Amino acid sequence: MRLGDLGEDQLLGQLLFNLPLARTVAAGPGDDCAIVETPDHRELLVLKTDCVVEGVHFLRGTSALDVGWKAMMRPLSDFAATSAVPQFALITLMAPKQTEVAWVKELYRGLRRAATRFKVSIVGGETSRTPGPIAISTSVVGWVERDRWASRRGGKVGDDLFVTGRLGGALKRKHLRFTPRIAESRWLTKNFSIHAMMDLSDGLGTDLPRLARASKVGFEMEMKNLPLARGTTADDAISEGEDYELLFAISPRDRNRLERQWGKKFPNLPLTRIGSLSQLPTKDRQLLPRGYVHFQQPS
Amino acid sequence: MRLGDLGEDQLLGQLLFNLPLARTVAAGPGDDCAIVETPDHRELLVLKTDCVVEGVHFLRGTSALDVGWKAMMRPLSDFAATSAVPQFALITLMAPKQTEVAWVKELYRGLRRAATRFKVSIVGGETSRTPGPIAISTSVVGWVERDRWASRRGGKVGDDLFVTGRLGGALKRKHLRFTPRIAESRWLTKNFSIHAMMDLSDGLGTDLPRLARASKVGFEMEMKNLPLARGTTADDAISEGEDYELLFAISPRDRNRLERQWGKKFPNLPLTRIGSLSQLPTKDRQLLPRGYVHFQQPS
Repeated sequence: MRLGDLGEDQLLGQLLFNLPLARTVAAGPGDDCAIVETPDHRELLVLKTDCVVEGVHFLRGTSALDVGWKAMMRPLSDFAATSAVPQFALITLMAPKQTEVAWVKELYRGLRRAATRFKVSIVGGETSRTPGPIAISTSVVGWVERDRWASRRGGKVGDDLFVTGRLGGALKRKHLRFTPRIAESRWLTKNFSIHAMMDLSDGLGTDLPRLARASKVGFEMEMKNLPLARGTTADDAISEGEDYELLFAISPRDRNRLERQWGKKFPNLPLTRIGSLSQLPTKDRQLLPRGYVHFQQPS
Repeated sequence: MRLGDLGEDQLLGQLLFNLPLARTVAAGPGDDCAIVETPDHRELLVLKTDCVVEGVHFLRGTSALDVGWKAMMRPLSDFAATSAVPQFALITLMAPKQTEVAWVKELYRGLRRAATRFKVSIVGGETSRTPGPIAISTSVVGWVERDRWASRRGGKVGDDLFVTGRLGGALKRKHLRFTPRIAESRWLTKNFSIHAMMDLSDGLGTDLPRLARASKVGFEMEMKNLPLARGTTADDAISEGEDYELLFAISPRDRNRLERQWGKKFPNLPLTRIGSLSQLPTKDRQLLPRGYVHFQQPS
């Protein structure tokens, strides 16, 4: 059966039936808006939207389960960057009418599986026809404590720069199966003063200059220390993108305690010091293999 | 200049520069997530996402200003349906790299103009390449008082059904220039007990059965009473869609007071009783010219 054979109500009814909804949801799928409990007033609301597009973020023929996983996990990776807790998600699916209903159901299975992994409730879903490729837009709402949110902007001269995990090689498979570093990020901001943080989506070579620019400082990267995925060169590792690891800046005074406690808490996830923040002017010319930049033509 | 000539940072920098941000916004465009003040804890959070797609919701050649207006106002119309107050919006723009940057700037001017009309802050923007048509997904977050939110579900047998404005003919022009009935909806729930409400996006012939079904009642529509736009037939008026007027159910005891006070408060906007809610089984067979149903082939 194809989407064109179903009405929107019927489709949404099938997709959203039996969604596990938190008790904080007063009105969910099927109404004009979703209505949910506000977080405690001591906390801040956190909002993020992102999308995946066929032919850009996934190829035709990719497992719909993987596509759904990725569509949910990309904005959740931004929650990790912010050290925020995601709670509610809204999905907009744009799909041609010849799309198989089975494919869409599998997509939602991936979305639900990813949401469940982080206790996120899918509280709204929209569908629209499109004459073009399939696109899924996911918006996520959550919260963070006032004294705990991280941004790209607080890095200080002299801060150590760390990354989680290994970089590079993500386009083979990891970009469809990654787990946002929310647990790690929440642990970091609970136990340390994290000056600046972001998730690596476009490659360290693009993202590190962004963090430095937002913090109004320069940076020095130690290429020889990069934690490379197996079979990856350093050039590829900083330019390919889609790592969805954390990059953060922290006072060098915290380095020993951080490395010691991290090793105990997350023994299976490397944490690597890859450089430091420095005075402007930046030396980012050393980084010339640029990361992936949306819209920019490969030269 | 085309999108392909700009990097994403540069594009977003240009689009989001000088956005008027409310003081409740702690982190906005340019960071991984938007971070905003929570509403008062006595209120509920309201969430909605929606999209407009080239070739479906607007035609190539449509003024970008109009497209931006529509992309923002569609989810705001759902806020009207819920009697909620919108506060923050996130935009995801999917566009081919040959799109003119001037077009995108004009789109954002439309988005901003619409947002400003209802004091909404655009707190996040994402862009993605697409090989297909332009698509804009807008997510909106806001709030509503616990005792004041409306849904489709509370209609009771015997309730009068009212619609605002005139129906039909929207596809000519109104669908790009409409104003969501937020002020009217907020006034209604402040002064009356509104049992059920929704906005008319797919045509009364599709939307009224949805309200009745959600309320688990039937309905009777008085076709001769329909408030028709000039040059429209009743059949067209209930099937074309994109009216973005309010449909609501209210006790017949309130009818006289409602009509009298409405006329004083909104002298330029018709309010028309178009029928009532009845016992099941519904008589919706009288409504056979169906409204627009996403994905369904015209037969």
